Amino acid sequence: MSIDLRNRLFEQLDQLVLIDPHTHINALDPSSHTLADILGYHYYTELAHSAGMPKGQIEEEGISPKEKVGRLIENLGPISNTIQYSWFIEMAQKLLDFEGDTIDASNWEAFYDSAAEKMSADSWTDTVFNKSRLESVFLTNDFDDPLEGFDSTKYIPCLRTDDLVFHLTNARTKMRLYEATNVEISNVASAREAIGKLFDHFVSRNAKACAISLPPTFAPTKVSDARAETALSHVFSHGPSADEDDQRAVSNFIFWTLAENCQQHKLPFDLMIGVNRKVFPEGVYQGQDLYDSRVSLIQYKDLLNAFPDVTFPISVLASVTNQELVSYSWIFPNVVANGHWWYSNTPTFIQHDCAARLEAIPRTKQIGYYSDMYKMEFALPKFAMYKRILAKVLAENFVIDRSWTEESAVELGTQLLRGNVESIFNVGS
Amino acid sequence: MSIDLRNRLFEQLDQLVLIDPHTHINALDPSSHTLADILGYHYYTELAHSAGMPKGQIEEEGISPKEKVGRLIENLGPISNTIQYSWFIEMAQKLLDFEGDTIDASNWEAFYDSAAEKMSADSWTDTVFNKSRLESVFLTNDFDDPLEGFDSTKYIPCLRTDDLVFHLTNARTKMRLYEATNVEISNVASAREAIGKLFDHFVSRNAKACAISLPPTFAPTKVSDARAETALSHVFSHGPSADEDDQRAVSNFIFWTLAENCQQHKLPFDLMIGVNRKVFPEGVYQGQDLYDSRVSLIQYKDLLNAFPDVTFPISVLASVTNQELVSYSWIFPNVVANGHWWYSNTPTFIQHDCAARLEAIPRTKQIGYYSDMYKMEFALPKFAMYKRILAKVLAENFVIDRSWTEESAVELGTQLLRGNVESIFNVGS
Amino acid sequence: MSIDLRNRLFEQLDQLVLIDPHTHINALDPSSHTLADILGYHYYTELAHSAGMPKGQIEEEGISPKEKVGRLIENLGPISNTIQYSWFIEMAQKLLDFEGDTIDASNWEAFYDSAAEKMSADSWTDTVFNKSRLESVFLTNDFDDPLEGFDSTKYIPCLRTDDLVFHLTNARTKMRLYEATNVEISNVASAREAIGKLFDHFVSRNAKACAISLPPTFAPTKVSDARAETALSHVFSHGPSADEDDQRAVSNFIFWTLAENCQQHKLPFDLMIGVNRKVFPEGVYQGQDLYDSRVSLIQYKDLLNAFPDVTFPISVLASVTNQELVSYSWIFPNVVANGHWWYSNTPTFIQHDCAARLEAIPRTKQIGYYSDMYKMEFALPKFAMYKRILAKVLAENFVIDRSWTEESAVELGTQLLRGNVESIFNVGS
Ligand SMILES: [Zn+2]
Ligand SMILES: [Zn+2]
Ligand SMILES: [Zn+2]
Repeated sequence: MSIDLRNRLFEQLDQLVLIDPHTHINALDPSSHTLADILGYHYYTELAHSAGMPKGQIEEEGISPKEKVGRLIENLGPISNTIQYSWFIEMAQKLLDFEGDTIDASNWEAFYDSAAEKMSADSWTDTVFNKSRLESVFLTNDFDDPLEGFDSTKYIPCLRTDDLVFHLTNARTKMRLYEATNVEISNVASAREAIGKLFDHFVSRNAKACAISLPPTFAPTKVSDARAETALSHVFSHGPSADEDDQRAVSNFIFWTLAENCQQHKLPFDLMIGVNRKVFPEGVYQGQDLYDSRVSLIQYKDLLNAFPDVTFPISVLASVTNQELVSYSWIFPNVVANGHWWYSNTPTFIQHDCAARLEAIPRTKQIGYYSDMYKMEFALPKFAMYKRILAKVLAENFVIDRSWTEESAVELGTQLLRGNVESIFNVGS
Repeated sequence: MSIDLRNRLFEQLDQLVLIDPHTHINALDPSSHTLADILGYHYYTELAHSAGMPKGQIEEEGISPKEKVGRLIENLGPISNTIQYSWFIEMAQKLLDFEGDTIDASNWEAFYDSAAEKMSADSWTDTVFNKSRLESVFLTNDFDDPLEGFDSTKYIPCLRTDDLVFHLTNARTKMRLYEATNVEISNVASAREAIGKLFDHFVSRNAKACAISLPPTFAPTKVSDARAETALSHVFSHGPSADEDDQRAVSNFIFWTLAENCQQHKLPFDLMIGVNRKVFPEGVYQGQDLYDSRVSLIQYKDLLNAFPDVTFPISVLASVTNQELVSYSWIFPNVVANGHWWYSNTPTFIQHDCAARLEAIPRTKQIGYYSDMYKMEFALPKFAMYKRILAKVLAENFVIDRSWTEESAVELGTQLLRGNVESIFNVGS
Repeated sequence: MSIDLRNRLFEQLDQLVLIDPHTHINALDPSSHTLADILGYHYYTELAHSAGMPKGQIEEEGISPKEKVGRLIENLGPISNTIQYSWFIEMAQKLLDFEGDTIDASNWEAFYDSAAEKMSADSWTDTVFNKSRLESVFLTNDFDDPLEGFDSTKYIPCLRTDDLVFHLTNARTKMRLYEATNVEISNVASAREAIGKLFDHFVSRNAKACAISLPPTFAPTKVSDARAETALSHVFSHGPSADEDDQRAVSNFIFWTLAENCQQHKLPFDLMIGVNRKVFPEGVYQGQDLYDSRVSLIQYKDLLNAFPDVTFPISVLASVTNQELVSYSWIFPNVVANGHWWYSNTPTFIQHDCAARLEAIPRTKQIGYYSDMYKMEFALPKFAMYKRILAKVLAENFVIDRSWTEESAVELGTQLLRGNVESIFNVGS
């Protein structure tokens, strides 16, 4: 009965047409061409590597997509328990008409070929959008992305700012910034001018958010213009060998300037908090980052108080930070709980975190889920996973434990999945 | 069947007459006069504020109680999912004969009036005690509370000591202490004398506990009399601008002196660990505090070892600290796990934390729940929430998973709800 | 149905013959002689002490085993809710033919006598092995254990290294090392020689792992030979009063040397992370240790990167570190998630931690459980507890939530319980 109930709720949530509020889709090449685009996703390469497959076999230069897929398939046995493997199978079944529950050495090749044929259709991306019941997706664009050649109401730009905040010591970043804005950044005024131009450009192209991922040690504070002036000058003259204090002051100055621009342009600022980069430098591409779960949202106290008019959709990397996210969203009007990110994007953590949010954060201030995908095919299985868990939580914690009607439960789920994306990011309604 | 089982256990636990071991009830005005006393509870004002209602609308001077309730009701839609909203509805139904599941613009006014009428009865407080099956409640009294004008076996005094430990730099605190004790505190000896007088007074008025809430950075240590002497002298001459080191030494000295008095008077010392005050200074009244969950009970190691005869009922603010609370209660004879506090007082965290405690802490060393309420009407829905979760945990983790009889499960629940309050605080038996 | 399903899965997992990959069994005296060996286990003495039984009654010199059991039994009432008490009852029922659910003042004496009689049989240890379906157990041997007098394929040696890393300042440790290796350790070269000899000895006696428990503050780094040389010289001349920096450098040097030897001898290095020793010095024997849950696996970043060929089965003391363990095992090929340790070895934490691991760590990189027992009788109830929880997780999170077949679920459980112990430690297959 609880299972039937869950299924009924899921069926209704599964009818919704969604907007995916955070992806890494390339708008000029959104969907896959072969299974190599699917299995090249870092979740598969890093798990296969973790289970013993040498990096050299995975990332060997010059091998064909088919060869790569064959090698990976043969190494997926040890990860058949993972939720990531189940994404692959569900995607194969629902989008690529695969029949069966296992893809292995015995059957992958025929499937590879049939998948490649389907993916070669001109309409493939549209097919994926339709079957996935997706209306549009947010992108994650480098600050110097020209944002041209695509429909920006379907592929909605989002300004990613990691490079600006953390890599301005890098001469290449400064050069890219110059190329994007025609501003040679050398001091506080020119930095403000350049960043202002980026926002103008993005907003003119329908950008609906600014985003950044942040290490657990980051604790933004306002620095004075005078301090920023000195710090910028030191950082530009010494590059990556500049004093850590100066580098931190520059990061803080740029970060604060971004928040000011978000305020001015009424853009939400997505904070994705907690990642340490390159913890495992010998890992595969995009499979090197981990974290120190000892982080607190108290580090963002000054920021949240300084920008009451900026909405901060916050994602946390570790489930142990979820209760703080619940509490800060419950108290701060400008904090929104955003999705289930990366290492917390597995069922046990999603269920625990989702349930805690649903019972204590205003229902208008929770974004249920985003896929974080690099290729369109992943929206379907990832959202399906989330919707099953959401249906379970709504069934058990609301309909059974709190005597809610199924209709009310579906309304709440609908708001998390669609309504809040519209209202928070000002899209799609 | 698991649902039926839960209901059977709940029904039995729900028959118990309880003592609420921690509230903020004003013994001279314990229950509500209008719904404004209910909806003025910070849980509603802060959630409405978080969901977008301006503070100025909530806290406008001079508006009538009815106007305030009307404004708040119109802003509760976004929080209808929260467990706090469900407390309001259950309270309305069970204590105020409200019929229906929603209170909104369409029906609040008639309900406001009928509630005000019921609350105006002389017997209203008694009615609430009876319907809530409460025998008595612990108060949380300022140190200079005269403790007069009420039945101290029904409203049991508890000495709150936050001001003494953390705000002795404040001239007003020193003055209040003088007025309460006739001791002008200026050095170690007079501080000890004043605090001793407070304890004598409280104990003579049937106080059964001393309590304090503590920031996550606090780590009590014993300071020598000589160090305390210097620190007190600096703090009294420089006030709030005194050295942080001196302020910390004074806090430690006063805290240690409180523990010594608890030992002497055989009073449990409630430690409520983890709150940062005024994290969101623009928040509504009592809706400004949050926390840094990076706190450890190891900070209390010296204290727990130094006072083996003092019972420390410990509450932790964040569920991530609950496992430490379980382990410290399992090892230290003088540590007791106490209730589910504030940001951890929502079903998902209660269930997880309660289950972990029930299977590893001696059954005599767990206080199931306290309401933390400011007005008597909240005991019923808050305890009901807890009893449902307790029944669920007893049903699933004991009767089903460990083959306990229902009778044994109810006995365990009864001990958490009533028996341990009696034995730990020496009341009511 | 979910209960029936769980039971079916449990029955199948319960048929497996297991190898216990971490115990503290004394190979020369593996099983109990009386119930005093059972109830003398720190879980019972520390819980009875925590519930109010004076240490002097528990540890009084010269009392008979029977007297000790009688005293403890009379103090177990307050811990009848704990999972540890349920281990005792299940063990009594399954191994010692006890009938009933409670052992108390009314019935313990007859049971004591019948247990003592059963335990006095020459075949008792074999009986326990058989009824527990155990094939062999790992030991935890002091570095100077002669490893003689037992069958090292049934009692598999494991080199415990806590003393070497953390107590080399202790003259007694240095002496024991000399007695074990004939090497007078005085500098880097002799330290390497001595440790090499220990490994040679252990490996020659079929040792299959090296193990250590680590405080939350430990963060291993490589120190240069020159730094190690100075540090060793200071530590040997000043003993425990040597500079903390020097002591830390010595710990790091020895720890790194152990890892180098694990690499050379292809031994997994069990890291048991997070314990603070003697937090409660007045506690009973082995009941004095607790922890600070603020620890991160990022502290092991350098080590994990430096030794890609050493397998590190990692146990964490607190459930809040479990997600990091999941993520680090998912990314680092040489990290394996190992069992449910000590304060996390209770059902609520096991279930949450186990579920999180099963869905995100390659199935080949998870060791389901070890008993950590001191006497053979505890394997049966401890593994039974784990198998029930594993069956529950497989039933709910795999068969129900993810539509796995029961057969596949049992295969996954079997791999966790047996297969991975074989492959990771190179035993038993
Ligand atoms: Zn992303
Ligand atoms: Zn309170
Ligand atoms: Zn052990």
